[in-house]
Amino acid sequence: MVETRQSSTQINSRQELRDLVRSQLQALLEQENLPGAKALLVPVQPVDIAEAIERLPETMQAIAFRLLSKDEAIEVYEHLDSRVQQALIKQFKQQEVLDIVDQMSPDDRARLFDELPAKVVRRLIEQLSPTERQATTQLLGYKANTAGRIMTPEYISLKEEMTVTQALERIRRLANVTETIYYLYVTDAARHLTGILSLRHLVTAQTEQTIGEIMTREVVFVYTTTDQEEVAEIIQHYDFIALPVVDTEKRLVGIVTVDDVIDVLEQETTEDIYTLGGLQAGGDNYFQTNLLSVARKRVGWLLILLVTNTATSAVIRGQEDVLERVVALAAFIPLLIDTGGNVGAQSSTVVIRGLNTKDVRLDQALRIIQREASAGLLLGLMLGVVVTIWAYFLQGNLAVALSVGISLLAIALLASVSGSALPFLFSSLKLDPALMSAPFITTAVDVVGVFIYLSVARLILKL
Amino acid sequence: MVETRQSSTQINSRQELRDLVRSQLQALLEQENLPGAKALLVPVQPVDIAEAIERLPETMQAIAFRLLSKDEAIEVYEHLDSRVQQALIKQFKQQEVLDIVDQMSPDDRARLFDELPAKVVRRLIEQLSPTERQATTQLLGYKANTAGRIMTPEYISLKEEMTVTQALERIRRLANVTETIYYLYVTDAARHLTGILSLRHLVTAQTEQTIGEIMTREVVFVYTTTDQEEVAEIIQHYDFIALPVVDTEKRLVGIVTVDDVIDVLEQETTEDIYTLGGLQAGGDNYFQTNLLSVARKRVGWLLILLVTNTATSAVIRGQEDVLERVVALAAFIPLLIDTGGNVGAQSSTVVIRGLNTKDVRLDQALRIIQREASAGLLLGLMLGVVVTIWAYFLQGNLAVALSVGISLLAIALLASVSGSALPFLFSSLKLDPALMSAPFITTAVDVVGVFIYLSVARLILKL
Repeated sequence: MVETRQSSTQINSRQELRDLVRSQLQALLEQENLPGAKALLVPVQPVDIAEAIERLPETMQAIAFRLLSKDEAIEVYEHLDSRVQQALIKQFKQQEVLDIVDQMSPDDRARLFDELPAKVVRRLIEQLSPTERQATTQLLGYKANTAGRIMTPEYISLKEEMTVTQALERIRRLANVTETIYYLYVTDAARHLTGILSLRHLVTAQTEQTIGEIMTREVVFVYTTTDQEEVAEIIQHYDFIALPVVDTEKRLVGIVTVDDVIDVLEQETTEDIYTLGGLQAGGDNYFQTNLLSVARKRVGWLLILLVTNTATSAVIRGQEDVLERVVALAAFIPLLIDTGGNVGAQSSTVVIRGLNTKDVRLDQALRIIQREASAGLLLGLMLGVVVTIWAYFLQGNLAVALSVGISLLAIALLASVSGSALPFLFSSLKLDPALMSAPFITTAVDVVGVFIYLSVARLILKL
Repeated sequence: MVETRQSSTQINSRQELRDLVRSQLQALLEQENLPGAKALLVPVQPVDIAEAIERLPETMQAIAFRLLSKDEAIEVYEHLDSRVQQALIKQFKQQEVLDIVDQMSPDDRARLFDELPAKVVRRLIEQLSPTERQATTQLLGYKANTAGRIMTPEYISLKEEMTVTQALERIRRLANVTETIYYLYVTDAARHLTGILSLRHLVTAQTEQTIGEIMTREVVFVYTTTDQEEVAEIIQHYDFIALPVVDTEKRLVGIVTVDDVIDVLEQETTEDIYTLGGLQAGGDNYFQTNLLSVARKRVGWLLILLVTNTATSAVIRGQEDVLERVVALAAFIPLLIDTGGNVGAQSSTVVIRGLNTKDVRLDQALRIIQREASAGLLLGLMLGVVVTIWAYFLQGNLAVALSVGISLLAIALLASVSGSALPFLFSSLKLDPALMSAPFITTAVDVVGVFIYLSVARLILKL
């Protein structure tokens, strides 16, 4: 009797505590004071937090849960009853909840939201369609273009102590609800990834062997935060069909399959091509982006050209006397600029693509720049001769024709050297060569090119 | 006794025939008269051809074999004893043999070499390393960039009447010598592909079921001649791990796996990027190509620019009086050309990449051109205002500044319309938009742009 009373007293005081926590928590959430709510929960026992969360209004449950540290979140989740677990998971895709998270700054999100426990992530993403997963990622806290965003929870996990027969039995049962059965992932009781096994090895093993005996312990894996481009490179490098994704404690949360990687590679390629074309890449649908943001994505490079051209204009104005005396020279400025720009683009395309596909390494820079310089010289010679003859026929002025031809040779050399050297320079400075090279190549070709042209003309025309 | 004698007479006459065939064949091959050798073998029985081939000098055996029609080749191969079969297969990778084939024109090869029988192909490519396979493809007769070039013979084939247990037994035995065991290919006695089965379905089936009962009869396959880009698209579209490759009679000769497809996609992307960068793509190693052929691959686009610029020069010379009176105008020609070229490149990059990834369809042309025109107008307005102010500060001449600003607006519109419309035009004419668009956009921007600029200046400056 005494015991019962004591126990009931405890429950009473606990109940009071829970009531207090719940009402304070709700008040703080209603004021959108999330740091306050996070601080409130720190000293509270997981079982009491669970109780408090269960009694919050629906839209607040998921937010409150997300404010827990990862370790707390695991324990609190275990204390929730399975009906509430389900309801909580459902809230992760509710628009009202997503809207609240959407309004937070990324910094706030990063500070407030710890990584989600692997178990919850799996339960959560299992229930989400790929589109819903996209929408929920803010709440999940995985950054765009990371493994966390593209992983799927549809894999088969095994335990080390299972026999081959038991494993095959499990695969038979799960084969229809999983994305791939060709790689099997071995985890311990705490969901840590301890090994990997291909179905190929499993079917060729003796039936009485255990998984622990035949699995590979050297597992290649990525973290949820690993960049998707790196994920794609690993799968491509090893010719994998799938790659496991783990959280910071190496608990298995999902896998990335090769078909997703093909899509990632296509998307990354589009970004590379857009950057080379002077566009900022946006993952958005073409028709859904409004015109203003289309223009904003393109105007950057064009404004840089404006600055570049200030220098070119200055060079032309500085040598205006040459142009004034022989206006015919102006007719060849477009040719020199176009040709220089294209020779530069050719060299930089080869180097930038080579660096992206890892066919070209930084330590080959000198050899490649030399090669491109020779190619530029050769192209310059071929074009210079053709252009000299062509310009002479057009204008009948040999001095002008020679100025154009000689300048073209110099510009082709300049363009191929800067076109090949600048991507290496930017790459070694950890800057994107595709983004950075074009403005500088244009500057070199336009400014220096026009300067060379007018100087050569001044010399030859004896002005 | 009579029978024996008759038989021995027959052998004697046969032996004579074989000797005759062999000596004539050798003579023709030594004269490199391959059409003659091919004609010689047509009326001869397969068993006699086999006998004749066995006694040819080593380097000629493979060539003689390749001259047979496909049907004959199957029978002749069956008549060769297994030691000679092995030796023959080995010759397919010998340099002397490859050199002979290398010297033939592609037309000759196509006329003389029939498709190889599936059985021989499989035996052959099984023994070749990927590099050797590359070198041998001339002799095999598969064109570059086709499924025949990238397929592997390492697959597991099953028969319809096998049970699930038997199939699993076979997989266990072959798992270590095959590239993938995750798709299983079902063939009839004549090697025709009749069905496909995933290991997933096999392990979930009842052990006593037959393969014929559980396999899929609607097989997605490609021919040895199918372009590798199409192969990649099919695998990407269906999220396959592998795709079967058949000959013209639908006999299974190999499979293409998803990891090869990733390499194909990368290679095709490089080609697209090179084309956009004004380079002819060559599959060759960068350092192994000699400088002359590097220059040859780049000079095409540069010579086109020369032609384009003839028109631009003509426009400038036609309006030389404007420039003569206000030389300051020349300082802004580079700006207008650079900006126009870039706005055009931005629009064409979006459309060309969209067409390549199939995100943009031809029937959306009008809508996209309208959108790009609006974007161009918006960009032109933004830049036009900035440039007018900028030019005024640089030169202090409002009329010149206004001419530059107004021309820039017109050029941006012109560039975005031609940049988006031309790729659609070339695509609908079945021409590669990446290859064709740039020269025409440059022409539009340079020629028309400079014309607009000088005309606007003439009006505003009242010249």
